Amino acid sequence: MGEKAILDLHLVSDSTCETVVSVARAAVEHFKSLEVNEFVWSLVGSKSHVDRIISSIDRKRNNLIMYTVLDDDLREYLKKKAEAYNIRCIPILSHIIREISCYLSVAKDPNAHPHRLSDEYFNRIEAINYTIAHDDGQSLWDIDGADIIIVGVSRTSKSPTSIYLAYRGYKVVNIPFVHSITLPIDSAALADKLVVGLTIDIDRLIQIRRNRLISMKNQSNCNYISYEQVEQEISEVNRICMKNQWPLIDVTQKSIEETAATIIQFFNRKNNKIGGDAFC
Amino acid sequence: MGEKAILDLHLVSDSTCETVVSVARAAVEHFKSLEVNEFVWSLVGSKSHVDRIISSIDRKRNNLIMYTVLDDDLREYLKKKAEAYNIRCIPILSHIIREISCYLSVAKDPNAHPHRLSDEYFNRIEAINYTIAHDDGQSLWDIDGADIIIVGVSRTSKSPTSIYLAYRGYKVVNIPFVHSITLPIDSAALADKLVVGLTIDIDRLIQIRRNRLISMKNQSNCNYISYEQVEQEISEVNRICMKNQWPLIDVTQKSIEETAATIIQFFNRKNNKIGGDAFC
Repeated sequence: MGEKAILDLHLVSDSTCETVVSVARAAVEHFKSLEVNEFVWSLVGSKSHVDRIISSIDRKRNNLIMYTVLDDDLREYLKKKAEAYNIRCIPILSHIIREISCYLSVAKDPNAHPHRLSDEYFNRIEAINYTIAHDDGQSLWDIDGADIIIVGVSRTSKSPTSIYLAYRGYKVVNIPFVHSITLPIDSAALADKLVVGLTIDIDRLIQIRRNRLISMKNQSNCNYISYEQVEQEISEVNRICMKNQWPLIDVTQKSIEETAATIIQFFNRKNNKIGGDAFC
Repeated sequence: MGEKAILDLHLVSDSTCETVVSVARAAVEHFKSLEVNEFVWSLVGSKSHVDRIISSIDRKRNNLIMYTVLDDDLREYLKKKAEAYNIRCIPILSHIIREISCYLSVAKDPNAHPHRLSDEYFNRIEAINYTIAHDDGQSLWDIDGADIIIVGVSRTSKSPTSIYLAYRGYKVVNIPFVHSITLPIDSAALADKLVVGLTIDIDRLIQIRRNRLISMKNQSNCNYISYEQVEQEISEVNRICMKNQWPLIDVTQKSIEETAATIIQFFNRKNNKIGGDAFC
């Protein structure tokens, strides 16, 4: 084996591959020196589809298959086929299903279906639609429907953070704070809402905005990246949050997932929930 | 134990809980008769935080802890503490990390950090921003930047499907098809792009639109839900897709994750990728 190990990772599911992708990526993050080629095989619904996957694998390389396959027959077929070709095949969920089953003395359902169109699913779709419609200060007339309101200056990741939260089921409004323009909401009317401010290191924000202008081929907007104005914008947002006792999150070193997780903690605290949201 | 088993599920991570939530939800989908109360504990960063979690658990109930904890000390502390309280504690990633490590004879990194701000991460943020800016036929002047273009009539889940794809790293434009208005794009100019049409059962679409009008307190828009018009709209989209050889997906019985997975398959096929997207 050379300096750097290379791994071909074959992710297989008869559903969407969402879980297996999430787990595989989290696992390989523990091996920074590893070079990983990822092959995603979703909606695998037949033995011939399994055959196609197996025959696409270059057996001279390092290969691992990871899978979540609900259909019993198909799962057994995949395992047998992989074994015949001498390829390691790792289940993602089996040990957890076994633990739940043993602990509660309940058998797993013979015909489970993932992502069925449940109430929880439709709530999530509604949250995504609501959040898109209320991106960047749009449609503030029905701000009452929001679970979470995010306030911040331009380029503090308000939109992706909102979308991430929407995907977790929260209806989010995000409102840009623009220099010398009053925030277009009545903070007194939002007393029972979670409003969160996003703040960021000034130099980092100038760098992000400069890149943004370059990518838009618009480098004449000097105010947008002037230190004085950026500093004023940020300190104004900080002041407004302080005055209204809205929590403020510094996103400088945070990924959107981390910012969103922090916001969910504030949300749970405000709504007296322990840990997180209950679901059935 | 009564008729229906009840399980309190405590999901713990020193990161965002994304992986552990995804796995836990996929696993409990195998037990439809189970009633699950989910408690999400993200960004757990200290032993006192672990103490708070453990002390919040009602030991008279059925409890399972599932976790992804990167920090070695903290993980050991959680395991010991749970054991002392006699609560089953299930790791999500350990067996996979072990398999990778054994198979390739590489040790896992001592200080792994999840969701670090990598190129892949910034590409994803860019994809989300692009997709929001191009929702519902906006900003078509830079449609060239898109990876995927989705066309469909109103209420065929174009927006949430686009957002889901964006979250997986694809830049998506979605364009509504409106009755008797020409599609505002030049299909010849899109020859090298993946354009996908969404179609749906007529009765189902009328039902979705009727609910939409009720929720908007606007029940006077008869055309929007008239059988004739809905039928015309859908057959027009089908015709356009057929003419341009754009694949058409029937979303009637599909979740957005399933629709997105199908679109990714078309994308890979168009770009001659095996399985899915490679990443390092």
